[in-house]
Amino acid sequence: MQGIKEFISANDAFARHVGIELLEVDAGRAKAKLDVAAEHKNGLGIVHGAAIFALADLAFAAASNSHGTAAVAVNANVNFMRATHEGVLFAEATETSRNHKLATYDVAVTNGEGELVAGFTGMVYRKKDSIPVAG
Amino acid sequence: MQGIKEFISANDAFARHVGIELLEVDAGRAKAKLDVAAEHKNGLGIVHGAAIFALADLAFAAASNSHGTAAVAVNANVNFMRATHEGVLFAEATETSRNHKLATYDVAVTNGEGELVAGFTGMVYRKKDSIPVAG
Amino acid sequence: MQGIKEFISANDAFARHVGIELLEVDAGRAKAKLDVAAEHKNGLGIVHGAAIFALADLAFAAASNSHGTAAVAVNANVNFMRATHEGVLFAEATETSRNHKLATYDVAVTNGEGELVAGFTGMVYRKKDSIPVAG
Amino acid sequence: MQGIKEFISANDAFARHVGIELLEVDAGRAKAKLDVAAEHKNGLGIVHGAAIFALADLAFAAASNSHGTAAVAVNANVNFMRATHEGVLFAEATETSRNHKLATYDVAVTNGEGELVAGFTGMVYRKKDSIPVAG
Repeated sequence: MQGIKEFISANDAFARHVGIELLEVDAGRAKAKLDVAAEHKNGLGIVHGAAIFALADLAFAAASNSHGTAAVAVNANVNFMRATHEGVLFAEATETSRNHKLATYDVAVTNGEGELVAGFTGMVYRKKDSIPVAG
Repeated sequence: MQGIKEFISANDAFARHVGIELLEVDAGRAKAKLDVAAEHKNGLGIVHGAAIFALADLAFAAASNSHGTAAVAVNANVNFMRATHEGVLFAEATETSRNHKLATYDVAVTNGEGELVAGFTGMVYRKKDSIPVAG
Repeated sequence: MQGIKEFISANDAFARHVGIELLEVDAGRAKAKLDVAAEHKNGLGIVHGAAIFALADLAFAAASNSHGTAAVAVNANVNFMRATHEGVLFAEATETSRNHKLATYDVAVTNGEGELVAGFTGMVYRKKDSIPVAG
Repeated sequence: MQGIKEFISANDAFARHVGIELLEVDAGRAKAKLDVAAEHKNGLGIVHGAAIFALADLAFAAASNSHGTAAVAVNANVNFMRATHEGVLFAEATETSRNHKLATYDVAVTNGEGELVAGFTGMVYRKKDSIPVAG
């Protein structure tokens, strides 16, 4: 799975712009990290829901593309449970179903104390195209 | 409503980092814009779902905070309908319900041709705190 | 569109068991009705969220199957906005996107006074199979 | 927790009408069962999404009301993963977050072979009212 991790890390411009790091990718699973900085806050001084979404979304993208064919997100649902002011956030994605066309993933976003910050569920449409990874 | 538009534009660090511009805020409504650039793309070369989410989320935040008291997002659901490669994206949020504790918003994300790119629905919890706007 | 309306009305056993009536089906649109009765209530004496979901879901199913090929629900999201104690509820589904594999629908559930009771969004996977309607 | 299980079993008219049985209720958890019958099918002859939702929703309602104060559903999201033709379905709800106003629950719906049929996530608003259970 080194190929997909390196491919996403090198080519996902938005994740890089936000400062998200992809830590691990395995078949149907992935883990990502965000070190909270000033540019991740909203007007109330807490970590922005959209930054949390971006973190969860990268783990989701890596997990759903881990099987070697391109998967595109078609739906995502997120519940925001706890405000974050500083520190680090982790997102861990797990595959909950997969057939030849659709697959679903749960992503747990936790803070440095292991507390749940957000729960995310996403669905992808699986294309036939291979991902151009080194393999 | 000039107060809330200026407050968010000045203080929402993440929206500024992503490059989202808040165009209009009215009671229960808001409109935002994103000029697509290289840093908004994913590994497949299309606009990242999380960038589209961030755009929709800013319109949602502005609309839900337009009544003068702080509103925090508790749930969001998004359907991604159409890939975007370049150009401009708009998000337009409309309030669909509001009581003293909860409110819901629909956000339509469209491209420069007016085609629907994503449909977003969000719910906020409404706090008693006033937003520190100039008014 | 008479074929699909009659097909669903005759063959959707669960909708009939719940007491939901399909009023209209047009290309990408449908409308359904529920006359609230004692068996639709929850333990708090208000109309059950699952009964409201069932109503919205039938309008969604009819709208998404209105093009003549079988569509199966893969995701649904619902926000419950207002309690209902008695009277009638209507659900009106509108297609928001459709390609050859996926389509999305918004469904508004309203009471007899035209007030929004719930907002529902659903996604279907579109199969190649024709629906066996009289046509 | 015998009080809340008996209260819901006796008073949830819709769950009874659908034929759902509440098996267990514990603090923040609940389990329910549906024996699939002809009235649970849709026009395609498979178990209706709204019947699966009703099953998940009852486990969600029981888990969220297990703390002794009334909780009302404000949002639910469901992914349908696998068609069911016959047999039994189970729903198991687990609390994922709870503060004094809001709480969230994941519900897994499985068939008799333990395969995941649907994944459901729900949010409740927690009222101050006690539930009139025997205690």
